[in-house]
Amino acid sequence: MTNIAILGFGVVGSGIADVITQNQESIEKKIGDKINIKYILDLREFPDSPFADKIVHDFNIILNDDEVSIVAEAMGGLHPAADFSEAALKKGKSVVTSNKHVVAEVGDMLLKTAEENGARYLFEASVGGGIPVLRPLGTCLAANKINSINGILNGTTNYILTQMIDFGKTFEVALKEAQQKGYAEANPSADVDGIDACRKICILAAIAYGKLIDPAKVSTTGISNIRLEDVKNAADSGYAIKLIGQAKDVDGKMAVSVSPRLVPYDNLLAKVDDVFNGVLINGNAVDDVLFIGRGAGKMPTASAVVADIVDIAGRPELKNQIWEKATDDDLAPAEENVSRYYVCVKNALNEENVKKVFSDISSITLRDGELSFITQPLKKKVFDEMASKLDVVSWFEVL
Amino acid sequence: MTNIAILGFGVVGSGIADVITQNQESIEKKIGDKINIKYILDLREFPDSPFADKIVHDFNIILNDDEVSIVAEAMGGLHPAADFSEAALKKGKSVVTSNKHVVAEVGDMLLKTAEENGARYLFEASVGGGIPVLRPLGTCLAANKINSINGILNGTTNYILTQMIDFGKTFEVALKEAQQKGYAEANPSADVDGIDACRKICILAAIAYGKLIDPAKVSTTGISNIRLEDVKNAADSGYAIKLIGQAKDVDGKMAVSVSPRLVPYDNLLAKVDDVFNGVLINGNAVDDVLFIGRGAGKMPTASAVVADIVDIAGRPELKNQIWEKATDDDLAPAEENVSRYYVCVKNALNEENVKKVFSDISSITLRDGELSFITQPLKKKVFDEMASKLDVVSWFEVL
Repeated sequence: MTNIAILGFGVVGSGIADVITQNQESIEKKIGDKINIKYILDLREFPDSPFADKIVHDFNIILNDDEVSIVAEAMGGLHPAADFSEAALKKGKSVVTSNKHVVAEVGDMLLKTAEENGARYLFEASVGGGIPVLRPLGTCLAANKINSINGILNGTTNYILTQMIDFGKTFEVALKEAQQKGYAEANPSADVDGIDACRKICILAAIAYGKLIDPAKVSTTGISNIRLEDVKNAADSGYAIKLIGQAKDVDGKMAVSVSPRLVPYDNLLAKVDDVFNGVLINGNAVDDVLFIGRGAGKMPTASAVVADIVDIAGRPELKNQIWEKATDDDLAPAEENVSRYYVCVKNALNEENVKKVFSDISSITLRDGELSFITQPLKKKVFDEMASKLDVVSWFEVL
Repeated sequence: MTNIAILGFGVVGSGIADVITQNQESIEKKIGDKINIKYILDLREFPDSPFADKIVHDFNIILNDDEVSIVAEAMGGLHPAADFSEAALKKGKSVVTSNKHVVAEVGDMLLKTAEENGARYLFEASVGGGIPVLRPLGTCLAANKINSINGILNGTTNYILTQMIDFGKTFEVALKEAQQKGYAEANPSADVDGIDACRKICILAAIAYGKLIDPAKVSTTGISNIRLEDVKNAADSGYAIKLIGQAKDVDGKMAVSVSPRLVPYDNLLAKVDDVFNGVLINGNAVDDVLFIGRGAGKMPTASAVVADIVDIAGRPELKNQIWEKATDDDLAPAEENVSRYYVCVKNALNEENVKKVFSDISSITLRDGELSFITQPLKKKVFDEMASKLDVVSWFEVL
């Protein structure tokens, strides 16, 4: 009998209980053992839930029950989720989670703690919800050097951008509608400012390169400054603006960032719309591989957490990937980053003036007294210098 | 030291050697051991190759060398590839392959042989080339009941169809060009008749449902009967015609088929073009997940084979998935299958006549004396009966 405990009976936690119950027979066949939800930790009571008798309010009951071998942390937030996870791992209990906040902040410590205590720490659901992407990146693409990862990692912002692109809504209108539909929270900052996407790209980068960057050190720009005019200019030139988490190898160093980028229509990421997520991985042998699916939601996320439970229950002897902390020396200098740029300037500075600064530009669009264009590949520091000479209204990198 | 042998030094075999050599350092870090290509089995000599000194002509040298723990079978064809694989597994050597022919025909036997001899048999590269899809299906989606799998599984046919759709070429012209570009073989039957796609959907179905169907029992229709008129009619109604390998759960039985289907443009599979492959998996918890990448090619395929080698070298104790042979009783009766149909009839039978037979039709298109339309969902046997009353020029299922 594999006894598990679920920490938190919110959206994800109750989804985990549902997925296990609905697919119990096939799960037990896969792990070759009975599976039992022994405890669910929550401060609340759920008298009408079929799981009412599993609810406990004291984490120590779970921690001190040697029969519990796997803990599914679905509490959210950094504390006490990280502390409970660490305590469980120290007792030799394996921990699975969808909590990107914990993994991005202290995943390196928790993986080492797991390894030291003969336990496992898995978090497939922390990136891309139900999309299998972390395990394939770590295993199936193991024969590759990962050149780059570009991901649409946040469903809320992708929904808002899709509304702007397809229906010509402004950011403010699209955000309000997303909030009304429950896709965005009352305080939408973690989504629209790119904080959630930042945690996810840090996790992806850690799996690809073995080093976890402090999310606070990642250049992160959200979507609130994207104007409808930029969306239209981009569309006229054959691009969709998407919030992209990017990690790439630059001469053996990591370049990691989150920002809105113009994605050309012939890149399938441009067609990943609404609340869907997409992760495009380029390896030196496999070339491009793209994973698409629902990046959030109760059941998709829960299915990924339960897959981790199945993995552990069936193969408890597997080792954990060990991450180092990334130091400043591991990071490629941002000012050396090379990219093409979309730029929009006041039209008073006409095409000729622009060309005096950026000699080689394309996709020139005139709209409402503004002129937009796309530059040749430039180092960031060169671009900044050039842009400072013009009255720039907005600019974004081009993927 | 992990010693491996490669069987066959053709496209895939030489790719395996290249991927290991190029990424040796990172591979060794992942498996925690040195990796060495000890032998390459081929009838030919390769005096100018950096691997010239590894070439042997007698399989028994490999079989009887206890230092060789992993054999990468890259010979192609059923025999002697299957026999060599079986012999290696019986010696306790693990086997990895990209050979869908072997896996689809005798994968069940080889998995059992591996399990009985403490070895592993892995074949990630046999479906989707470098796209990680088999392992995610077997592990990351383990918490799901798989409702359906729909895949564009053959790059050659997808290239031909893309040429027909995007450039209005006929099948014959597109095939000839594909042959000139090396995408299609001189005898293109295995690709254009759907045989290759059939083997791949059998492998996917076996992983999803634990039962391997004899490919000869799978209803398989290729693309040679797709007319340019059908492609245009489909486009006018918002569909792309794609060769789809499909496996689905129908009341606990498996329905497996390969046929051209009309894929609606809002399904991302419709946008998987050229030589790319795409596999769309629907699970009861995760909903839709889509994997896209290069389904063939030397380096992508080799990278998947080498990932299997890394998996085995790092974790030799893992168990194999065991497949049963599917019996007739496991298969859903084809005549009960429910689908919408695209139908093209001679226009002499005008819309009114058509509606007397198929009462509820949509997407009606008139072109060059033909009338095409899409039916409501119908059982196959009902559709056949209705279609027999009209002068049908062509028909395809709608996804």
